[in-house]
Parts: sequence; structure tokens; C-alpha cells
Amino acid sequence: MDAERVTSRKNPIVVRLRALAAEAALRRVEGEFVCDGEKLLTEALDKGAELTLVIWKERARSLPGLENVRQFVVPAELFDYVSPMKNSPGPLFTVRMRPEEAEPRITRALLLENVQDPGNVGTLIRTAAAMGVDTVLLCGACADVYSPKTARATMGAIFRERLVHTDAAGAKALCERNGLPLYGAALSARASDIRGLDLRRAVVAIGSEGQGLSAELLEKCDGELIIPMTEGSESLNAASAGTVVLWEMARGR
Amino acid sequence: MDAERVTSRKNPIVVRLRALAAEAALRRVEGEFVCDGEKLLTEALDKGAELTLVIWKERARSLPGLENVRQFVVPAELFDYVSPMKNSPGPLFTVRMRPEEAEPRITRALLLENVQDPGNVGTLIRTAAAMGVDTVLLCGACADVYSPKTARATMGAIFRERLVHTDAAGAKALCERNGLPLYGAALSARASDIRGLDLRRAVVAIGSEGQGLSAELLEKCDGELIIPMTEGSESLNAASAGTVVLWEMARGR
Repeated sequence: MDAERVTSRKNPIVVRLRALAAEAALRRVEGEFVCDGEKLLTEALDKGAELTLVIWKERARSLPGLENVRQFVVPAELFDYVSPMKNSPGPLFTVRMRPEEAEPRITRALLLENVQDPGNVGTLIRTAAAMGVDTVLLCGACADVYSPKTARATMGAIFRERLVHTDAAGAKALCERNGLPLYGAALSARASDIRGLDLRRAVVAIGSEGQGLSAELLEKCDGELIIPMTEGSESLNAASAGTVVLWEMARGR
Repeated sequence: MDAERVTSRKNPIVVRLRALAAEAALRRVEGEFVCDGEKLLTEALDKGAELTLVIWKERARSLPGLENVRQFVVPAELFDYVSPMKNSPGPLFTVRMRPEEAEPRITRALLLENVQDPGNVGTLIRTAAAMGVDTVLLCGACADVYSPKTARATMGAIFRERLVHTDAAGAKALCERNGLPLYGAALSARASDIRGLDLRRAVVAIGSEGQGLSAELLEKCDGELIIPMTEGSESLNAASAGTVVLWEMARGR
């Protein structure tokens, strides 16, 4: 499909794209999200994501798979106005969210509660996909997985990893229906050393870096686990703790 | 020591602090670096770092350990002019770099080559300290460990973890003098599965996310290791790969 040229900030395409990039609530209503960059675009095409629109900076490229997608070309200045990233070479594109499964069959999953940094959430989705952990559960006030920053940090895993937004009770019910224990990562005296647990079929919850897991979620856990650290080290970054958990799930024993 | 009030952008203290925050070369010449935030300040005092100056935003606080440190108070607007972070509540402070040891006794170390993201470098220094990996070696064009962003990501580990800046030949010589094998993380067919290696006494090198390790460094390695991933996953974020390596060094077998 030939790319249409757009030059005005008031063009409805421009207005809508800027709003979608900025507002999580609008993304949820519309069921679409905004991604940035040719690498991510290639991943989206490769993973069969449903693209709804592409906006190129100054010059369109023809990529296989884009034949039936609406495409636009805008001047550099207008592109920078639309783009949520600074100095991006583009393109920007919108992708239809996949509906979440009502009854997912889960083998092992990472649960994130109140992990607020988009880079950490995106990196953990990427690492989960790489480690063969089939699902990421999101509870509480996590960074929006569909924000441009999070999507970028997933490096394309957003197009294939199973994501489930739920709450503590919903997560617990999912664990029970799949016959999986739910562990909470905690710095408590009663937590078991992660090395002693078999996590190949399990769900492990990671909380925010400052606060840890909520009392509500901890109460639903079948056990607590701890990643042993040297004395004088208070805690790990949420992405680092999550990476160790994902790796322990994948590595076998 | 009572805090002096500074109100001008032309004050030499202000001029020097801004330059130190912005310029890696000046930091090296002066042997000082700039940190931000009360949490990091508490860590610095706790770890016995040599503080050279503190600049408070609007109001000084008296903390034990600061009695003999020069302190300044500046108006909010001037603070924001000096600060490398946006909207920081402060304080800013400068710390003397510890001299690097000429002949460090290393048990296990992570080597970073050309890892350019300050957040990744800082997080890995923090995780190394937490995992009891005593040394981080830095080769090539890594993010400056003394930049405000990197220091912040270390969450205080910058004040105690042993850091050694060297090159491929220097790293190899250090490994030999300490009787440690040098492994390179690589996505090659000849790389050994990390789970089969004993890394409790070893040095492992991680390269940049896009490029991997340089040919020069790989040539110096005694072996290559790989973190197994599911099909279709190209690679891990450098911080994630480093975290798995650090955890494998710490976990035992």
C-alpha cells in the first residue's frame, strides 16, 4: 500500500497516535499500542502481530508483510512531535493487543506486583520469553506493558509472551487451577533459599524494589523464597531478582 | 561544619560541580565524582567513602559523619541548574575515587567490555556486590562507572566493590596471576552450557548487547560459555546475562 503524506499536527492520525503513545487508559479502550523502531517492527512482522498503521520519518521503506497496512510519511519535525522517543529514526507503528486468555494453561510464570519501572518490566518480559517461562502475570500498579518504553525494552517479546493482568485473588485462583505452587520473593527469616526449591512448575511473585510484595499477596503464597546475598547488601534491583528467579525456573537442578 | 550559602551560577563551587557531573575526563583528572540523593549519601557515610563536599537544596540536614565535610546550601533553582538529575530533592555530593589496586587478589570477577548503558553497568556492580563477586573489570568503551547515573544505579556498591579498569591483555594477565580461567559469554556453537562449568573461581566476560565480545578479548579466553535460551530468542539484555553469570558464580553447584 502506498504511503500517504501527512504534514499537519492537526491531522487526526497524528492526534490519535500522540494520545495513544501518552495515555494508558486510551490504549486499553482502543486495544492498540504504539511501538518505535525498525528492529521492533521486524519483530512484530516476524511474530505475526496485527499491525494497524505505520508512520515513517521522511521516507517510507517497503518491508515484506506491510503490503496491507496503512502507511504514512511525515516530515522529520512532525515525526519528532509525534514520537515518544527523542531523536528516533522511526518508524512508529501501532499494534492490536492480543486478547488475554480466560483460562490459560500455565507451566511456569513470573508474577510482578507494583514493579513501576517500564525498563524493568519490559526486560523481565524479554527474559521470561528467552528462558521459556510461558507467562508473566501483572498485579497492582506495574508499569503499563503497552507503553512505548516497556514495549521497546521487551525487544519484541511483547508480541509473543503470554501476559495476564489480574489481582492477588485472581493469581491465586490461576495457580490452583493449574496445580502450581505460588511463591513470594521476600527478605524474611522464614523464606526458603531459592536453591532448595524446584521451580520448574511454579509461579514466583516479585514485588517493588522499595516495598516488596503486599501483605495481601504474601498471604496468598504457599511459601516464601529468598535469593541469598552477602552481608551488607540490602536488596537487588527488581529486574535482577526477577532474572535470577527466571533462570532458576529454566536451569533445572 | 556550618553550611555556607551560595546563590550565584558563577560561584566556583557551582561551576566545578557542574563540570564534574558532566565530564568523565575531568573526573579522572580530579579523582572525584558526583553522587545524588540522601540514600546514596547515607551509603557513602556507612561505607567510609571520602566525601569532599555536600550541596543541599534549600536546607541543610545534619547527618552524623558530615561534621568535617564542607557543606553548601543553594536555592532550589540553582540546585536544579547544578544537578544532573531532573527534579532531584538532593543533596549532591562529591566523593574521592579510591585508587585501583596494582595487584588485586581476585577470587571471582565479572568483566564488562563495551557495555554502554550506565544503568546496566551500575546494576551489575550492585548485583556483583550482593552476590559476593569481589571484582568488576571494565574494558573498552563501557559507561563511566563514575557518572552520576551509574553511581546511582549501584545503590552504594560503588563505594565498596573493587573496580579495575584494564584492557584485554591486562585482564588476561590478571587472570593468570590469580590462577583463574577467563570465560567469554558468546552465542557460538563451541560455547559450553554455563550450567556445566564451575564458576566459583573464575572470571567471566560479557560484551555489548549488539556486538558481543571483541575478537581481541575472545582470543584471550580459555573457553566460551552460553546461557541456554528458547528457540527464537536472540539474546538477553547485558544486565540480564550478567546477572545470570553472577548468580551462577555465587550459587555453587
